[in-house]
Amino acid sequence: MVRHNLLVMSDLVGSSEVRRLRRFANVYRSSELDEKTLADRLRQTDALLISSWPEILTDETLRSMKRLRFIQGILVGVDHIPFQTLGRKVVVCSNAGAYSLEVGEHAFGLLLSAAKRVVDTHNSVARGKTDFKEFRGTAEDILVLRGKTLGVIGYGGIGAVVAGLGRSFGMKVIAFSRSRRSGRGVKFVRGRGALTSLLAGSDAVVLAIPLTNLTERLIGAKEFSVARRNAILVNISRGDIVDQAALYEHLRRNPSFRYATDVWWYKEGRETLVTDYPFTSLPNFVGTPHISGPTAVASGRPVRMAVENTLRYLRGLRPKNVVKRSEYYRSIVL
Amino acid sequence: MVRHNLLVMSDLVGSSEVRRLRRFANVYRSSELDEKTLADRLRQTDALLISSWPEILTDETLRSMKRLRFIQGILVGVDHIPFQTLGRKVVVCSNAGAYSLEVGEHAFGLLLSAAKRVVDTHNSVARGKTDFKEFRGTAEDILVLRGKTLGVIGYGGIGAVVAGLGRSFGMKVIAFSRSRRSGRGVKFVRGRGALTSLLAGSDAVVLAIPLTNLTERLIGAKEFSVARRNAILVNISRGDIVDQAALYEHLRRNPSFRYATDVWWYKEGRETLVTDYPFTSLPNFVGTPHISGPTAVASGRPVRMAVENTLRYLRGLRPKNVVKRSEYYRSIVL
Repeated sequence: MVRHNLLVMSDLVGSSEVRRLRRFANVYRSSELDEKTLADRLRQTDALLISSWPEILTDETLRSMKRLRFIQGILVGVDHIPFQTLGRKVVVCSNAGAYSLEVGEHAFGLLLSAAKRVVDTHNSVARGKTDFKEFRGTAEDILVLRGKTLGVIGYGGIGAVVAGLGRSFGMKVIAFSRSRRSGRGVKFVRGRGALTSLLAGSDAVVLAIPLTNLTERLIGAKEFSVARRNAILVNISRGDIVDQAALYEHLRRNPSFRYATDVWWYKEGRETLVTDYPFTSLPNFVGTPHISGPTAVASGRPVRMAVENTLRYLRGLRPKNVVKRSEYYRSIVL
Repeated sequence: MVRHNLLVMSDLVGSSEVRRLRRFANVYRSSELDEKTLADRLRQTDALLISSWPEILTDETLRSMKRLRFIQGILVGVDHIPFQTLGRKVVVCSNAGAYSLEVGEHAFGLLLSAAKRVVDTHNSVARGKTDFKEFRGTAEDILVLRGKTLGVIGYGGIGAVVAGLGRSFGMKVIAFSRSRRSGRGVKFVRGRGALTSLLAGSDAVVLAIPLTNLTERLIGAKEFSVARRNAILVNISRGDIVDQAALYEHLRRNPSFRYATDVWWYKEGRETLVTDYPFTSLPNFVGTPHISGPTAVASGRPVRMAVENTLRYLRGLRPKNVVKRSEYYRSIVL
């Protein structure tokens, strides 16, 4: 068996994991190499283990890595990888499933915060609105989840956790997935028409689909026009799934519609908390600063799973979570 | 069978419910009577159906209602009823269970908002903190519910809903209840020592116990001192279960400890959003303005259940939810 040259380019990988990887490969850590040695190693590297895309891997450097065949990400999404520059033979693996528990819980935290109007009523009290009667209108807008319909767009690990929690709250669950899926008590739908009817029939919708060239701006003016007047849209996927301008306009015109997100739009290839519109001035917008991921990282599971999958590759087995490269043409740096 | 004289003193009760009640009693509505007629009726009234305590029922008026034998509340709590003035023969019934679903969901909304630090991170972004890196410390404070321990203090209808949701999130659930209870997957504890160990062993605690002379300031400096450093305390019961000064001091000194509430302290006998300490200036305080109750009222269930129980009394059956009067000595107006 060929002994691979694996370059670990993430500080998240600890020394015990490096020891495991060394049983099947020559393992180098970019953080331990000087510039010249790193340049040499890069040319010999056939496997990469990364979290966010390393700034040192410019398009030029990447093109010089003729032996590269495998990239394993520690993040769940791979939309930050410059696929257009990667040689055709490079297999890219996401870390799907590694964040499902934490991100799924976070999605429900956002959903309930918006459903119970926690953020805007808290802030109204803080700003000195101290008459209970003034909140009667808000109370009418509170969504009781039991008996309502939850639409889940994307049924990977996170979508499955969200669907399960929705069932626990006594919700009917509809899941949109392009591949055939099964899940207890979940109604699955497929195709563009199904997306529209899911949006029209749901009291709450959670976006749990990867950002690809098929899903960018999946939710725009047309989709908002079919959604329920007082629906809640939760995004724990990527900001760019939603059209920013259309969302702002929709929130401004429909105070009962709510958007709650942990993810933000890309600007010049990077996710940023600076938005094109003053979303945080709207009472029907809730935004947390992409904090669901780090919580998962802290559990150690993402690194463990990424290492397991890398070991699969190093040992000549078929790795899991190989992404369809044709769906990722964009160059985004996380 | 004696035909009762029932006085309905709540606008929440609709005409169809009044028709049902008329089959078993002479029913009058205070809103339809002039002052003099009302005064006459009050003297003849043996049963009252109320929501918040009617201002017209002063201690003097109440003492003149010699025939009064039964009071049914539409609110879940009865701590606003002036028990010390009521004749000994008056049976008082709470509306326990009528709000369980909505208030239980709200409790989880508050718990997740605090667990995922939704309010304070949202507000930090709104105030212009736009560097993801600045939130790394906060992310470390995020509580993942799965595998953690939820303590539920009070296991009535709301406590049972909260415990069930906790189980759905994969939490271990301990419930403190003074009466013997059973619930699937819930460990029950009793007695003052048990309260201390519940607080010491829980990552999140939900207060779902009525406010009585036994529970007022149940949670004070001593209880905070045994609680986990980064625990979350949720209150959907009554503000006065918690010692306000001790809470403020604890939150100020322990930024990882969180308090999330829908209920506020009494001042001059009324719940008020004006607090003695600047709670809303603390990032580890989340407060909604008692909005879980109105949501339940909107479902129609509280009125329906209160009417059902009143019918039970009118028909000579034993009513449900008779409260132990000895535990309510206070005079609080909601």
